[in-house]
Amino acid sequence: MTKVLIVYATDYQNTFKMAEALAGGVRSVADCQASVKAADAATFDDLVAADAIVLGSPVHMGSIDWRVKKFIDSCCSAAWMKDALVGKVGAVFATGSGFGNAGGGCELTMLALLNNLAELGLIIIPLPKSTPGYTTGGLQWGPYGRSANPKLEPVGVNEDMLSVARHHGIHIARAAKALQGARIFG
Amino acid sequence: MTKVLIVYATDYQNTFKMAEALAGGVRSVADCQASVKAADAATFDDLVAADAIVLGSPVHMGSIDWRVKKFIDSCCSAAWMKDALVGKVGAVFATGSGFGNAGGGCELTMLALLNNLAELGLIIIPLPKSTPGYTTGGLQWGPYGRSANPKLEPVGVNEDMLSVARHHGIHIARAAKALQGARIFG
Amino acid sequence: MTKVLIVYATDYQNTFKMAEALAGGVRSVADCQASVKAADAATFDDLVAADAIVLGSPVHMGSIDWRVKKFIDSCCSAAWMKDALVGKVGAVFATGSGFGNAGGGCELTMLALLNNLAELGLIIIPLPKSTPGYTTGGLQWGPYGRSANPKLEPVGVNEDMLSVARHHGIHIARAAKALQGARIFG
Amino acid sequence: MTKVLIVYATDYQNTFKMAEALAGGVRSVADCQASVKAADAATFDDLVAADAIVLGSPVHMGSIDWRVKKFIDSCCSAAWMKDALVGKVGAVFATGSGFGNAGGGCELTMLALLNNLAELGLIIIPLPKSTPGYTTGGLQWGPYGRSANPKLEPVGVNEDMLSVARHHGIHIARAAKALQGARIFG
Repeated sequence: MTKVLIVYATDYQNTFKMAEALAGGVRSVADCQASVKAADAATFDDLVAADAIVLGSPVHMGSIDWRVKKFIDSCCSAAWMKDALVGKVGAVFATGSGFGNAGGGCELTMLALLNNLAELGLIIIPLPKSTPGYTTGGLQWGPYGRSANPKLEPVGVNEDMLSVARHHGIHIARAAKALQGARIFG
Repeated sequence: MTKVLIVYATDYQNTFKMAEALAGGVRSVADCQASVKAADAATFDDLVAADAIVLGSPVHMGSIDWRVKKFIDSCCSAAWMKDALVGKVGAVFATGSGFGNAGGGCELTMLALLNNLAELGLIIIPLPKSTPGYTTGGLQWGPYGRSANPKLEPVGVNEDMLSVARHHGIHIARAAKALQGARIFG
Repeated sequence: MTKVLIVYATDYQNTFKMAEALAGGVRSVADCQASVKAADAATFDDLVAADAIVLGSPVHMGSIDWRVKKFIDSCCSAAWMKDALVGKVGAVFATGSGFGNAGGGCELTMLALLNNLAELGLIIIPLPKSTPGYTTGGLQWGPYGRSANPKLEPVGVNEDMLSVARHHGIHIARAAKALQGARIFG
Repeated sequence: MTKVLIVYATDYQNTFKMAEALAGGVRSVADCQASVKAADAATFDDLVAADAIVLGSPVHMGSIDWRVKKFIDSCCSAAWMKDALVGKVGAVFATGSGFGNAGGGCELTMLALLNNLAELGLIIIPLPKSTPGYTTGGLQWGPYGRSANPKLEPVGVNEDMLSVARHHGIHIARAAKALQGARIFG
C-alpha cells in the first residue's frame, strides 16, 4: 500500500475542498490511500509513515498560513535534523483570493512550501499544463484555487480547480508507487 | 529634471505598450522625463544618467526574456562591480500569456528583475492594490499585462493593464523626485 | 520625529541581537526613534503609528518563523484590507544556521517577508554590497546573521553581521525621513 | 540505457567543472550515460532524447546567465508548447562569487531554472543535506559552487562542491532509471 499524507489549513473550507479533491485522486489509484489532516493535528509520526507528503495552504500576504508554518517549524524541522524523510515524494497546492489577476502571491507561497519539502529531500511533483482543469486552476508548482472574483467577493473554488487537484493527486500517487522501494539518495 | 529610464524587450508589442504607458505616467509628473529603450539598445551610460530605472520583460518559462537578461549580465553587472547606481529608484513590470489563471510564472519573473535592482542598491517601488486598474492588471511587485485569454489566444493587453502601468510610472517619478538629492546609503 | 518599528521573533537571541543592532542604527540618525517588538506583542496600531516597518525572522525550513507569520496573517492582513500602510518604508533581515554555505534558504525567507511588505504598499530598502560588514553578513535583500558554523554548532552572530544590521537601520531611517510627508501613491 | 542531458554556460570554467563532475556521477550508475552540452550548442532534439535534463548556470545579478536563458526561451519554450518533455526528470546547479556569505542570489537563480523545468512537467530532484560535500557546497535546490573568496578573489570551486555535484548526478541518474517507463502524468 502506498500512503499519501495531505496536510492543510483552511479558513473558509476552500483549501479543505482542494485537499479532499486531491485525496480523491490519490484513492482512485490502485493500492494507494490518502490521509487528510489539518496542520494542527498532523504529527511527526504521520510524516514518517507516509510515502508522499502534500502541503496545502491559503495564501496570506504572499506566504504560508501560520498554522501550516507552525507545523513545518515543529514537525518538519525535526525531520530535517534527522534526515528522516529523504527520498519520499512531495507536492503542494494553494488557494487564495487572487486579487489582481496575476496569482495574488501564490507562486512565492507555493515556493515557500516547496522550500520545506526540498530541504527534507523530497522528490517534487510539478503540475504539467496538460492537466485537466489547468486552464483556470493551475500554476507549474501545483493547483491553485482562486476563491474570490475580481471584486474580492468569496465565490469559492470551481470544478476546474477541483479537477486540477484531483489529477495532481493521481500524479502524486503514481509517482510514489513508482519510486517505492527505489534507493535514490545516500 | 528627474529622469526615468525604462528598459524592455518585446515579442508582440505588448511589453512595449506597457513601457509606453508607464512612460506616459512619468511624463505627467512635473519636471520628470522618461526614456524608453529596448534592451539591446540601452547602455551603461543610460543607467548612470537615470534617477530611476524600470525593467520590463515578457515572461518566458517563468523568468526574464534573454534579451533583458543579456542587458543585465553586461551593463548592470558592470554597474554592480562599481557600486555605480546605489540609491537610485527601481521598479519592474511584466507581460505574459498567464495560462492557468495563477500568474503564469510572473511572480518569479518580476523577482528575478528585482533581484538585479536590489543588488544594484535601488530603492524598490511596489504596486499597492489601490492602484487604478489593479483588479485585472497587477501583482504587488508591479503591473502585469496578461496578453492571452484562457485558450492561449493573443488578445493583447487591455486598458486596465495599461492604466496600472501608467500609475506605476506616476509613483516611480514621484518617488525619484522625493529622493533626489537625499543621501540614503554610505 | 520619524518612527521605525522593528518586529521580530527569536529562538536563541540571535535575531533579537540583530533587531537591537538595527534599532541602534536608526537611533543614530537625528530625529529618528526605533521601537523593537516581539511578533506576539506587536499590534495593528503599532504598524499604523510607524513611518517605517522592519521585519526580522529566523529561517526555518526556508521560510518565516511561524510567530512572525501569525503577526502577518492577523495584523498585516487587516492593514492590507484597509490600504492602511501604503507609502511607508519597509525592510527585512534574517538569521539562520546557513548550513551548506549557500544561504540556507535565507533568500526565499526574506522574499516571503518582502512579499508581505510589497502587498502593503511599502517602499523597499535593499542592502547595497558597499554596506560595512556585507562581506560576511549580507544579501541584497537585507542583513543575514549566520549563527552556526559549518558543523551546525551554534556560534552566534558576529560583529560583521551586527554591523550590517546597524547600517541597514541607518539607511531605513534616512529613507523614512526623506519620504516623510511625500505623497507617492494615490 | 538512461540518458542524462546537462546544459550549462560557463565564464571561467567553474560551471563547466561542476557539469563534468555531475556527469561523472551519472556515468557511475549502471546503464546510465551523460551528455554535457554548452547552452548555445544544445538543441530541442537533445531535450526530447533525454530521460533527465539538468541545467547549470553561473549566478549573474541573482538570475540565470543570458546564454542559458536564450536556450530556455528558444528550445524549452517550444517543448512547453508541445508538452514534449512531461514526466522526465529534472535538476539544477549553479556557481557564483557568493559575495556576502548568504548565497549571493543563488536561491532565486536556481528557482528560475526550476521554474522552467516545472513548466515543462519535469519531476524535480532536490539536494538532501545528507549529500557528501553539502557542508560547503549545497542548497536544498542543488549544488552551489562558490568560486570566489570573501574578498571576491577567484579561487575556483573546491572538492566539496564537486563532490556534491557528483552525488547529485548519481541521484538524478537513479531517479531517471526508477521512473523510466512509468506513466505518471496524463
